[in-house]
Order: sequence, then C-alpha cells, then structure tokens
Amino acid sequence: MAQRQLAINAFDMCCPGHIQQGLWRHPRDRSSCFQQLHYWTDYAKRLESGLFDGLFLADVLGVYDVYRASADPAIEAAVQFPVNDPLMIVPAMAAVTQHLSFGVTVNLSYESPYLFARRMSTLDHLTEGRIGWNIVTGYLDSAAKAHGLQQQMQHDDRYDLADEFLSVVYALWEHSWSDQALCAKDLDFRFADAAQIKAVRHEGKQYALDARHLCAPSRQRTPLLYQAGASPRGQAFAGKHAECVFLNGQSFDAIAASVQGLRAQAVAHGRAADDMKIFVGATVIAAESDELAQARFEEYKAYADSEAALVHASASLGIDLSKFDTDQPVAAQAAKSQAIASNVQAINRQHGRAWTKGDLIRQMVLGSRQMPIVGSASRIADYFIALQTRCDVDGINLSRTVAPECFDDFIRLVVPELQARGVYKTHYQEGSIRRKLFGSDRLPASHPARWDSP
Amino acid sequence: MAQRQLAINAFDMCCPGHIQQGLWRHPRDRSSCFQQLHYWTDYAKRLESGLFDGLFLADVLGVYDVYRASADPAIEAAVQFPVNDPLMIVPAMAAVTQHLSFGVTVNLSYESPYLFARRMSTLDHLTEGRIGWNIVTGYLDSAAKAHGLQQQMQHDDRYDLADEFLSVVYALWEHSWSDQALCAKDLDFRFADAAQIKAVRHEGKQYALDARHLCAPSRQRTPLLYQAGASPRGQAFAGKHAECVFLNGQSFDAIAASVQGLRAQAVAHGRAADDMKIFVGATVIAAESDELAQARFEEYKAYADSEAALVHASASLGIDLSKFDTDQPVAAQAAKSQAIASNVQAINRQHGRAWTKGDLIRQMVLGSRQMPIVGSASRIADYFIALQTRCDVDGINLSRTVAPECFDDFIRLVVPELQARGVYKTHYQEGSIRRKLFGSDRLPASHPARWDSP
Repeated sequence: MAQRQLAINAFDMCCPGHIQQGLWRHPRDRSSCFQQLHYWTDYAKRLESGLFDGLFLADVLGVYDVYRASADPAIEAAVQFPVNDPLMIVPAMAAVTQHLSFGVTVNLSYESPYLFARRMSTLDHLTEGRIGWNIVTGYLDSAAKAHGLQQQMQHDDRYDLADEFLSVVYALWEHSWSDQALCAKDLDFRFADAAQIKAVRHEGKQYALDARHLCAPSRQRTPLLYQAGASPRGQAFAGKHAECVFLNGQSFDAIAASVQGLRAQAVAHGRAADDMKIFVGATVIAAESDELAQARFEEYKAYADSEAALVHASASLGIDLSKFDTDQPVAAQAAKSQAIASNVQAINRQHGRAWTKGDLIRQMVLGSRQMPIVGSASRIADYFIALQTRCDVDGINLSRTVAPECFDDFIRLVVPELQARGVYKTHYQEGSIRRKLFGSDRLPASHPARWDSP
Repeated sequence: MAQRQLAINAFDMCCPGHIQQGLWRHPRDRSSCFQQLHYWTDYAKRLESGLFDGLFLADVLGVYDVYRASADPAIEAAVQFPVNDPLMIVPAMAAVTQHLSFGVTVNLSYESPYLFARRMSTLDHLTEGRIGWNIVTGYLDSAAKAHGLQQQMQHDDRYDLADEFLSVVYALWEHSWSDQALCAKDLDFRFADAAQIKAVRHEGKQYALDARHLCAPSRQRTPLLYQAGASPRGQAFAGKHAECVFLNGQSFDAIAASVQGLRAQAVAHGRAADDMKIFVGATVIAAESDELAQARFEEYKAYADSEAALVHASASLGIDLSKFDTDQPVAAQAAKSQAIASNVQAINRQHGRAWTKGDLIRQMVLGSRQMPIVGSASRIADYFIALQTRCDVDGINLSRTVAPECFDDFIRLVVPELQARGVYKTHYQEGSIRRKLFGSDRLPASHPARWDSP
C-alpha cells in the first residue's frame, strides 16, 4: 500500500497579529501588508509553488476585551484587530492559482442563509471547486454587541442555531436545483428547466424561507466543510457535519485521543471514520541545520510579544490573566463558569500539574501557546510523520512566524524532505478540493446534506 | 474652458440575461460564461483598455414572478436568474487592472451593517479606492420570502430603513477610526492608538450596535455612493446621499427634467449641484457605417426575446402583462395601486398617448424597453454629446448587447471618436474613483456621512 499522504494548509488571517503575537514587528515580516491585493496574490502563488493543499483563513468578529477588561491592549498590539473580510481575498488568489484551495472561516450567527449560500456558490463557481467553509458561531460578546445584542448566545444554543442554519444552506446547495436543471445551449433556446428547480421551504425556530437558490449548481455544490469545535457538543457537531476538522494540542496523547473521539463521532453519525480529515495546528522554524534553526528561533523570539499572547489567551480561555500572580496556580481563582473551569483543567492536564500564569508565559515564548518545532527539515519531517502515524492525523495547519520567509524556508527545505519520505505529493491531483482529498466532487450519500431534503 | 468629460461605465450583471433579453443565445455571445473567473478578468482588462471609468454591476435577490404569476418564464428565459454574487468578482478584476472602478449593487435590506461595512472597507483597501456601492432596498416579494417575510416592506418604509442603515455604516466608515489611529511601524512597537478608535453606539428603530469598525481607514473610507431611485422619495434620498445617480429615460426632455430635479434635491440638502454625477443608461450598436450598424442590429434582433422582455417589464412595472390584449390601452386595467398607476402614466407620457402592450413589444425589439442607438461612431457620439449638453448628463451606463464584441466595437470605433471630439479622456487620472470623478479621495464636508457623527 502506498504511503498515506499528508495534507498541508497554511493557516493565516487577514490581520497582522494572528497566532504568534508580535512577529509583525520583525523587520522582514510583511504581514502588515494584509490590506493589499498583491500581498495575497503573491502569497497564493508561493503556496502553490510548494504544493500546499490550501490556505485556511481564520476570522473573528469583534475585539478581544477580556484582558484588563479592555479592548485597548488588543488594539495597541494588533491582536487579530484590525481584521479584514477573508472572503474578499479569495477571488484574487484564485485568479493566479489553479489548485490551491481556500478554507474560509465565516461566523454564521449574523448571516442570512439565503445570501450566504449564494456567496459560497459564487465562490465555488469562480474557483471551480476550491472553496471550503470553516463553520463557526463565534465566541465574543463584542460581536454580539455589534449586532444589537447584549451578549452572545449560550454555547449549546449556538450549536442548535448552527444545525438549523446548515439544514437551510444544505437544502439550497444540494436540493433546490437538480443536476438536470440546466439546458444545453445548442439543443434549445431555454436556459433552464423550471420544473427542475424547486423552492426550499423552511420554517424553523431561527430561520424561515421559501425560495429557490439563486445559483446554478457549482462544482462541489456544498463547499468543503471545516469545523474546529473541541467541546463535547462541538465534537458531536463535527461528527455530523465536518469533512475536515482542525484541532490544536500540545501532546501526542492528547491529540491521539481527540482524533479517536472525532472519528468515533463520525461513525456514530453513520459516516465512515475516514470521511473526516483531521488537521493539527503547528508552527515550525526550519533551517539548513538544527543549529541554524535555533539561531533563527532566538532572532524571532526578540520580536515576540508575550503580553499580546496573554491578551489572546485571556479571550480564548475566558479568564482575565492580568489579575493573576505569576506563581499562583490559576485553577483555584478561575472557577467562575463551568466552561472556564474545563479550559483550565485541560491545560492542567497538558502541564501535568496546576499551571500558573508564569507557566503560560514561558510556553508563549514565540507569541502564543503553540510552541514551535525548531530544527532541520529532517527533524520537522520526523515530527509530522509521528503526528501522522501515532495520532492518526491527516494534515497540518501551518501557522506563520515571519512571513513570507517562513513559507519560503518550508517550501525550500521541508517539502523536499517530506517528498523524499513519501508522505507528500510531488504534483497536484486534478479537480476540486473535495476530489483531491476524498476522490469525489460531491459530498457522500452518508452526509446529512445529502439526505436533509427540504 | 476645457470641454467637459463624459464618464462611461459598462453596465452588467452576474447573469446571462441582463437588460437585452435573449441575446445570450447569440452564437458569439459569451455571457453564459458569467460563472467563470476568466470571463470577468478578461472583461475588466478589455474595459480598462477602453479607459472605461467603471463596471457598474446590477443585482437582484429573488426571481421575477409577476408575469403569468409564475417564476417559470423568468427561469426558462434566464431573465436575471440565476444570478451570482457581484461582489465576489471584484477582487479578481481588481487584481488585473489599475484604474477601472467597480460600482456594485447591494441590497441593504438583509445585510448586517457591521459586516457589510467591513466587506466594503476590505474591498476599498484591496482596490485602493476603486469601489462604489449602488444603494438599493430591492422591490421583490420573492426576496422577502427568502428571508422569512410574507412580503417586502412598503416603498417609503424601505427608504427610512435605508436612511438608518446608512447612518450606521457612515459612522463605522468615517468616525470610528481617526486619521491618526495607525502608528508608524518604525516609530514605536504599537500598531494602533486605542484612544483614536472609538465605538459607534447606535440604538435606532431597526438597528442597534456598540462596536468599533473592524477595519483601518481605507483610501476612500466610504465607497463611492451610487443610487438609482426615480420616485419622489427616491429623488430626495439621492439628493441627500448619492454621489452618482443612474437613471433611464426615453426622451431628452424627460431626462433633462429628471437631471434638473435631482440636482435641485442635492442643493436642497446643502450640497452643490455638481456634487452629483448623473449617468444615463444606453444601449448602442456601433459599426464602421450606419448601414453596417443597421445590418448588425438586424442580426442581433433575431436573437432578442420579446416575451422575456415582458417578464422583466412585468416585474419592474408590477403588472402582469400576460393578461393584456395587444391593442388595448394598459392604463385602464392596471390601476390596482398608486405606484403601478404612476408607472403606467410615466410610460403614457413617453409614448405621448395611452400605451398598449403592442406598443411595448414594438419598443422591445432588442429585448428590453431600452431602444438601441444604432449607427456609426459619429452618430453615437452625436447622441452622447446631445445628452451631455441638452440634458446636463455626466456619464453613460452602457448595457451590453452581444458580449464581448459590443465592447470591442465600442472601444475600437466610438472611443476614438469621443476623444477626437474632446469629450473623453485619453488617459486615466491617478487615484481613487472619487478622486478621478470629484478631485478628492474623501467625501466633501457637505455630505451627511461627514457630519452624521455617532
């Protein structure tokens, strides 16, 4: 049997400070050019030259304001703010590439399903099947306040909303137009057969509509579905809906357990365990030798911003870390909600003891909780292959450090090493991103989008 | 004094059947390729080679279903259906051009102002100030039904909604970030000065928010504002908000009266009469001689679809024209609402008598109520210059016939003639579309966006 191939996405965001906070200040970093079209078209061409499967784009609506109970630290340190609309850079990148796919985060909470379905169908047409959607419901009160609400919905209610939203957009994408709806231009002078295009009728708790989808069927119909929820409810949601799951983890044991849990959820929802591709986040610093990579790590570290990393971690964990002493365990003081308590316990397990703010700061030496893998291509390939074989992982979402040189180094050094080990493609397969990953343009019959008929 | 320059936009839509119905069936017409990226990037390059000021993109949410009380005729004849999202083609076209602007129709009725403001700011950044917005509120019950409503809001209520929506997005674009908010990268290590970025707080009838704009200020901040409302309430709205107004008219007298009324509305709102550029819709068939143009007209006519034109006209007028006899005046039978009665009277005035369905069909010989100007470049230039001098018009929105050859003919024949007459530019001015048209990247102090502070 051929060696299983590892998928690799770049993981980025339309903002200067994405994961590794502070590195936008490095003199060679160009991520402050995120507002310019050329930055992204150059980026896409670079990734395609390295045979990357895709560019996975994060997004967030609102400003992080947990740390010091203020938005000021996030604004001043550019922690995911400002942040431009990630969908808008996709068509330009698609125009200069042929194979690179785009997995774009869109928070469904404030979208019209009818208009969102059209937007994604249009992108699937324009990219000829290279668009994916990372389904999120957001986690910020500041986003809710931007929509006239006092605070976000409760965690599990957000997943119910998402389930209903998905059933509406699935119906528009998969069931409104039949495959026979379009007439051939040379056979008759009708464009479409009206009898083959039906209105989607839905009356639910959150959404109601009675409308035909505005777009003819695109290559994939439903965009490739990403999801990244780590909670039990999030894992169940992923098991039902997600084709690609993105997770982060500090230890192989924790990652392996998450992967196993996710695949079990897919099976519990009547799907195959390998109907789901699982991507793990990673940061790497690659150079010609371990020593040179360490030297580069030291150079980068000087620009990392650990306070900005605390701003981000505070928002993610729901804990204002500015209030904690460096040497006191956080757990005791942070039990104001069950969700927060479980966040803290998860980190305790990673650290093997009750963690302190000091532990976190030492971990965030490059500007985030994600410690980089530093070394030669051989060392990085070892790590990726271990992830694949020991944790049953399918792919990597690669965060940037100093961009674009981090991708140039990766493509120059790590890609040939992975190819030599037989775990990375030497050319692209033809077709849509779903065909490249799963062998078919369309979702399988076991996916709820196919049977959730209106 | 230099001759006043005429602005020229192409007028199109992400669909096969835009204005001149049926011509997508012509063997040389490529508009059925509207789903492909290359179609639009080639299109944009072509327009820029002809020094077009912009591409003005129409949009509609929903299917026309007035004619025969059914959506089937519109679907079968591809009357503005299917229709893809016009914003999605802009970034790709921007990537292959330097000067061409994009005036994009977006119906605000179902948009979140917070997310819409970010989308447009992102496009203004990516295009370096080449984005415009055609403000519409829609007129179809089918769009309302796609959003869980029984029918659209009443006409004047829609303008109240639009006024409130605009005050929110103006505040986000113009007042959330000060010009001093961004810090220079080489002076200190902060990205932005939080004290220079304030939350927009709004509690209105339709919208509420408390949020900072997610994007740093773009070249124009507020996109160039287009509007196309012809009713008295629509004209007042244009007088307050619009920088560019798009109107259609059959006679010079009617156009001149509309232009005068619009400029008076601008003045009534404390703006200058020439703070508003007025574009008139036109269809032309140009060839080397009048005879050759007539021959081409005859050739095109064979593909025009007058029933599809009736489908479109029925939706626009709010009258099911399938029910009318060819030779009976429509007015008597069509007085079911004041809006419809005034539509009918307006056409009566154009025709100089009580019009019949037969009159309309004879007028729609190329597939729409817009009769083409057919002839040599000299004849077409005469018509445009007469529009400019007799009606005080600033620009033309040029509909397609058989695309792209209609633009090739126009650029090859009409553009040099207009240049020779001194009414069309021979090179682009530098800068944003607002700077090209009005001499400044930013809205003037007299515009409500500048003084509607949160």
